[in-house]
Amino acid sequence: MESTSAPSKVILYNYWRSSASWRVRIALAWKGIDYEYVCVHLLKDEQNSEEHKRLNPMGRVPALVIDGHTLAESVAILEYLEETRKERPLLPADPVKRATVRQLVEIVNSAIQPMQNIAVLDKISGEFKQDRKAWAQLWIRKGMAAFEQIVSTSAGKYSVGDEVTFADACIIPQVYACSRFEISLDEYPTIKRVVENLGELEEFKKAHANSQPDAEQV
Amino acid sequence: MESTSAPSKVILYNYWRSSASWRVRIALAWKGIDYEYVCVHLLKDEQNSEEHKRLNPMGRVPALVIDGHTLAESVAILEYLEETRKERPLLPADPVKRATVRQLVEIVNSAIQPMQNIAVLDKISGEFKQDRKAWAQLWIRKGMAAFEQIVSTSAGKYSVGDEVTFADACIIPQVYACSRFEISLDEYPTIKRVVENLGELEEFKKAHANSQPDAEQV
Repeated sequence: MESTSAPSKVILYNYWRSSASWRVRIALAWKGIDYEYVCVHLLKDEQNSEEHKRLNPMGRVPALVIDGHTLAESVAILEYLEETRKERPLLPADPVKRATVRQLVEIVNSAIQPMQNIAVLDKISGEFKQDRKAWAQLWIRKGMAAFEQIVSTSAGKYSVGDEVTFADACIIPQVYACSRFEISLDEYPTIKRVVENLGELEEFKKAHANSQPDAEQV
Repeated sequence: MESTSAPSKVILYNYWRSSASWRVRIALAWKGIDYEYVCVHLLKDEQNSEEHKRLNPMGRVPALVIDGHTLAESVAILEYLEETRKERPLLPADPVKRATVRQLVEIVNSAIQPMQNIAVLDKISGEFKQDRKAWAQLWIRKGMAAFEQIVSTSAGKYSVGDEVTFADACIIPQVYACSRFEISLDEYPTIKRVVENLGELEEFKKAHANSQPDAEQV
């Protein structure tokens, strides 16, 4: 990408199957930003190393080095990319539509994803001896139902109208997680249609978990 | 507030002690927006009524009726208010500082708050027969430590520099929750100092849980 605001090397610290990493990969691909891919292996607990926690104090992925700064937390990174790379926008111009996009983002990011992350699931099944899949399904279904309710009126070709937005960058990894937890998209017809449309886009293929250098056969 | 963009009545559906409601009350107070206060009583499960879920499909508070639209999810609402009411900004001008603010917001909103909400705590203590306080403390401490690490370098008088931001609107209700779960702020000296400074501001006093019409003695 030609950009006067990105003179320095861009590095993404991430993991192929991490939802939050994937959102940022979609935005980077959409805006045509080249970057170095660094794997932080979540199953080896590399995210909790002192070195990584200097990049991301929460001990999570992703972290993005860009414009000489290190950014963390996926939605903060999406907003930064949108503010500094205005071509190929990922937010609509209208404030109310932007609020709908961000509402959808927040449902995935604060209602669903925190419940399905590895640390929480390990606590549920390891220490509490409870069924991690049933736990994850409960919260995922609650969030997906709300997402479906909203997109049933907001969607065009994609989640909000006919342009790709942050909401699409969030729902794609979430749908992959649904599959892992055996939740069928047949329950969510609008989401299913939107996801099929998104799946045809080259940028979304490039950002897909299975396309990453650290992807494993599962 | 004089505003040509707010001809219609503003209504906040919220609950005195809800963190997410409180964030929005701070932003409304900061920007001088008058509103009608409607209590949605969380302990009576009013948030899950069909009527309320038409306002907020997640069955949560807050929901804000403004400019003839109904908005939900607290961070989406904060961003909307910032975009449509530019006076008394709650985000810095610099994109990197904005990213830091949003990183702090996301730590509270997606790492801490989801773990301490009522539905999750009820599941932990009710169905799983586990200690809800210990559960909450675990995730709160992890998030608060990350927040402290960031503000130890970003803070001036407030969380990021010397201007009030979204991050301050998020940390104040979180600190109240810390108190409920018996986590001392002595562990987080920068946060403690910032919170003391914020506590002196009239807008923050007005938005405080205990100042709301539905506040109860606890």
